[in-house]
Amino acid sequence: MALGEFDLIERYFTRRGGRGDVLLGVGDDAALLQVPPGQVLVAAVDTLVEGRHFLPDAPPESVGHQALAVNLSDLAAMGATPAWALLSLSLPEANEAWLGGFAAGLYALADRSGLALVGGDTVRGPRVVTITALGFVEPGQALRRSGARPGDLVYVSGWPGEAAAGLEALRRGDALGPDDPLVRRCRFAEPRLALGRDLRGRASAAMDVSDGLLGDLRKLCTSSGVGAQLDLECLPVSSELARRHAAAECERLVLCGGDDYELLFTVPAEQAPAIDAELSARHALRRIGRIEAAPGVRCVRGGLRVDVPGGGYDHFA
Amino acid sequence: MALGEFDLIERYFTRRGGRGDVLLGVGDDAALLQVPPGQVLVAAVDTLVEGRHFLPDAPPESVGHQALAVNLSDLAAMGATPAWALLSLSLPEANEAWLGGFAAGLYALADRSGLALVGGDTVRGPRVVTITALGFVEPGQALRRSGARPGDLVYVSGWPGEAAAGLEALRRGDALGPDDPLVRRCRFAEPRLALGRDLRGRASAAMDVSDGLLGDLRKLCTSSGVGAQLDLECLPVSSELARRHAAAECERLVLCGGDDYELLFTVPAEQAPAIDAELSARHALRRIGRIEAAPGVRCVRGGLRVDVPGGGYDHFA
Repeated sequence: MALGEFDLIERYFTRRGGRGDVLLGVGDDAALLQVPPGQVLVAAVDTLVEGRHFLPDAPPESVGHQALAVNLSDLAAMGATPAWALLSLSLPEANEAWLGGFAAGLYALADRSGLALVGGDTVRGPRVVTITALGFVEPGQALRRSGARPGDLVYVSGWPGEAAAGLEALRRGDALGPDDPLVRRCRFAEPRLALGRDLRGRASAAMDVSDGLLGDLRKLCTSSGVGAQLDLECLPVSSELARRHAAAECERLVLCGGDDYELLFTVPAEQAPAIDAELSARHALRRIGRIEAAPGVRCVRGGLRVDVPGGGYDHFA
Repeated sequence: MALGEFDLIERYFTRRGGRGDVLLGVGDDAALLQVPPGQVLVAAVDTLVEGRHFLPDAPPESVGHQALAVNLSDLAAMGATPAWALLSLSLPEANEAWLGGFAAGLYALADRSGLALVGGDTVRGPRVVTITALGFVEPGQALRRSGARPGDLVYVSGWPGEAAAGLEALRRGDALGPDDPLVRRCRFAEPRLALGRDLRGRASAAMDVSDGLLGDLRKLCTSSGVGAQLDLECLPVSSELARRHAAAECERLVLCGGDDYELLFTVPAEQAPAIDAELSARHALRRIGRIEAAPGVRCVRGGLRVDVPGGGYDHFA
């Protein structure tokens, strides 16, 4: 049974209620939204392409989750609170099982994040998902990439590299089934929204790790007009990663893997003890280096410079 | 020469200045935007897929124009003033000539419309363009699809059908070159932003014609819980269309062609004379029917019911 485009949108992506600030949601030419007085609007867009950002046989629930999570991670990196999203869905056919799963994955994360889907477009074409996420932050409180200063300490949250390890296991065919913890991290990693909000007024700079820790640290340094020393011995390696991969492979995954939605941020050195004390109880955080005046990122092990091949992921390199 | 993803974004889509309400534009994890106090945010998203919404050999300037125009047309249909846009670009390769043309087409329309590009994502994949447009409208002034009431008069702006005629001519190979007026309308039709703003407080319902006048009038009626009589003799047929097509073909193009970005709207009958007097000097408008209580759209010619095949365009039908 073929569903018409408008039935599709109606059936899977129109839900009433949720947020009182949605004056008009899915179903008209545009959504009408009430921004709270005195708040700054935060807007991010990200696209997933089948075969590149998710495998053709990925469970649709995971595609729905990832498409929203990658955007929420951008909002987290700004210290923002998510509010609304618009969805563009290009699909080769109106497969109801796929759409149902996709919507379930998307709404599960949206509901946990207090976010309402307020608009969308559905077209026939290759499987490509684009979401625009909108949220708020107090004036002057947004985290930017450009605020790192020499002497600041560099931190990363959680366990970067697990998602990349999960994706590589799926590609090689040696994943331990859908409940493999690395596969779960690849498909259902959780954006660090609470951490991003906790970093407002504390971090000097922040971004999310989407193209790999090393490449993203380079980008943060470039935005801030600084450089950094990265202590390879301090990299967080999860027990699951360490159990299944040799040390060198773990290091490669942590440095070059993206899409765990971890946050990379810097903190003025004098505030670091207080931040450690306050935040370490609520978030897994690891101090991994220090900002320096000289441009570039220098990897160090045992006090010695080490050359690390590869930087961030570049779709067109 | 292959350009990296980040160079691409930097080179073509980062422009300083433009709007003072952009606190942070392209280049961080998200944009920071200042919504004017007391205004409602209006948000729309639309996607163009190569081979479906534009031909593979379409000039890149026209693709950039269309990708933004289809969104601005949604804002026009709400009576909104455009402010910002986010761009997602999936491309098979980093072709600089194509990107330069695309950016030129997009920015030309953005500049005319007072809109700033504030964020984006560039990925490798099939050629798919998604834009999210954001704008403002005064509280209670937004035009919706749902306000039409029995007795209201139905209007359409401009010359619907020309864009579809241009696209069909290109597909058949009998277009009169790139300066063919119908081809220009297909590639560079102008969204009716000024008309949308003029309709605030005047129209009882409005939407833009994107899937064809007949199908879109059905949608407007469904949203409003009403029906309509459509007078086929009153349809606007441009002189160019009439010169190149038989009358029956003109009627099909006007009823079923989309993407001219014309506005379809309804007006309470008692206000119609004033609206005609005020707006006809500034906009090409045609009265084409009347809202009725009975659901469905009834086409009439010479006082007699006529069955018209086909409704709106449905991507998955």
